[in-house]
Amino acid sequence: MKLLITGGAGFLGTRLARTLLARGVLAGRTVDRIVLADLVAPADAALCDDARVEVRTGDLLAMTAALRGEAFDGVFHLASAVSAECEADFDLGMRSNLDATRALLEALRAAGNVPRLVFSSSCAVYGSDPALPLPAVVHDDTLPTPQTSYGIQKFIGEQLVADCTRKGFVDGRSARLMTVSVRPGKPNRAASGFLSGIVREPLAGQPALCPVAPSTRIVLSSPARTVEGLIAVYEAAREAFGGRTALNLPALSVTVQDMLDGLRAVGGEQALALVRFAPDEAVARIVEGWPARVESTRAQRLGLQADADFESIVRQYVAEHPQAAALAR
Amino acid sequence: MKLLITGGAGFLGTRLARTLLARGVLAGRTVDRIVLADLVAPADAALCDDARVEVRTGDLLAMTAALRGEAFDGVFHLASAVSAECEADFDLGMRSNLDATRALLEALRAAGNVPRLVFSSSCAVYGSDPALPLPAVVHDDTLPTPQTSYGIQKFIGEQLVADCTRKGFVDGRSARLMTVSVRPGKPNRAASGFLSGIVREPLAGQPALCPVAPSTRIVLSSPARTVEGLIAVYEAAREAFGGRTALNLPALSVTVQDMLDGLRAVGGEQALALVRFAPDEAVARIVEGWPARVESTRAQRLGLQADADFESIVRQYVAEHPQAAALAR
Repeated sequence: MKLLITGGAGFLGTRLARTLLARGVLAGRTVDRIVLADLVAPADAALCDDARVEVRTGDLLAMTAALRGEAFDGVFHLASAVSAECEADFDLGMRSNLDATRALLEALRAAGNVPRLVFSSSCAVYGSDPALPLPAVVHDDTLPTPQTSYGIQKFIGEQLVADCTRKGFVDGRSARLMTVSVRPGKPNRAASGFLSGIVREPLAGQPALCPVAPSTRIVLSSPARTVEGLIAVYEAAREAFGGRTALNLPALSVTVQDMLDGLRAVGGEQALALVRFAPDEAVARIVEGWPARVESTRAQRLGLQADADFESIVRQYVAEHPQAAALAR
Repeated sequence: MKLLITGGAGFLGTRLARTLLARGVLAGRTVDRIVLADLVAPADAALCDDARVEVRTGDLLAMTAALRGEAFDGVFHLASAVSAECEADFDLGMRSNLDATRALLEALRAAGNVPRLVFSSSCAVYGSDPALPLPAVVHDDTLPTPQTSYGIQKFIGEQLVADCTRKGFVDGRSARLMTVSVRPGKPNRAASGFLSGIVREPLAGQPALCPVAPSTRIVLSSPARTVEGLIAVYEAAREAFGGRTALNLPALSVTVQDMLDGLRAVGGEQALALVRFAPDEAVARIVEGWPARVESTRAQRLGLQADADFESIVRQYVAEHPQAAALAR
């Protein structure tokens, strides 16, 4: 089978590709070819050298014209401008997230073979509307009231995927990803960035700032569980997926204090001491608008479970990035 | 003040324009000018002759380029391809409903004066997803799961209006209109068409077919209450409107039997005898997917109420269209 991963050079895209190549099989079919489409090539040389991998670089919206004549069996649409970019540049977000998603759906429709499609939406579709605060627990049927352009664009993408599925253009499924922690690599400017940074930096012996109070409760998912979720959503029978609305992937609900406890268990007092609280009201306001607890009975029915606890997430990070976790014991 | 009504030649657009001209005032300001934009000119000659009215005909999407340099104080965006058209021609619906709405918002943003905007969404955003049936009563925070392209496009329009409002491009409010009954004029092919036809045709001495069982429960609103709702949403203070999600306008919940009772009260047994039941499973399936009861506390807070009963709606129709209601007593 031939797969397309948009955003294929990103952290999740490359991890998904490596996982699929290692399995060799998806939904009972052999993975013969994976096209990784992104603005740049993946940094992972071993991945690019796999004979089954084809790297295509360029702007996704511009690429979609050529895709109209190419039949993919399956698509993981992960490409996206991120939250902070979309807030800073409205037009960029509309183009990268809305126009590109629509053009991709049009291309898949034109190809005519009704490919299976997993669209990576985000728990950022949830936000606290001034007049309609989020419930304490977000369920599968909680009304999203996005408070960012990124969240709006993801929610619109879900609607387009649902209708193109109903119309029989694609077999689409939208999965809402939780904040992924611990992300490897450099800090980024996303409001959620500190949810990786307060673990990653101290484990590497570097200081980290925490902009919110220890009691702040958030939901997250490890990289491994997130990729597992994308694959399970792809492999689910249509009836098992349950309808055409987006599915919330499982989420571990933790406080920042729980995260720091996990950090200490793995990195000791020395690592913990590197975290300094530097309250940032703007970030705190955004983070407090996010879901604090998510219960997805649909994800449970697919056999998906949240990470057991945050310490196991920290240990996953250390096992995968030992060279970046000098303080881990 | 200068107003734009898109879909200004339609049934609701012309009624809204006539109502605004008769009031002379909107949100405390004098109505100096109303631009009615539509594919065709309104049939109402008296309306077109009003010195305050300017008629512009053409494709809305094409018109929006010129609107970028024109400052309107307020906009009622009613233009829309209807449900049946959008189901038959996906691309037409995407262009007329999604692209035109987005281009209109872009034009209003470019004009730079942050106009007030009322977007007419629809209770068609609600539908019974196979795996997520509608609750018995639809509330303001019920998750829409549209089951038509029209419903999807309206729901996407709501998201665009919400984000452009959050960004400060417009002061937008989305109001979900219920099925309007009794619509005057000729029958149309909309699935909801019979909800006017089973009253309008018999009152004119013509036969009418009813495709669903008498026990079928639906929600509707009279033309007068619908226009009243659009104006109230326009005039509401931002805080009173309550957030940026769409507001469900009030809805009278009735069974088809209630409607026929109303018809008999006004048109007698002679009118009632002109209605014949001709079950149509396709129509019944669509209609049963619609909300049966809608409770909108936000609309109530704006002082809006549903019609008292269906008989009063029939009497409203007869009073306004005496020449078309020969059998009314």
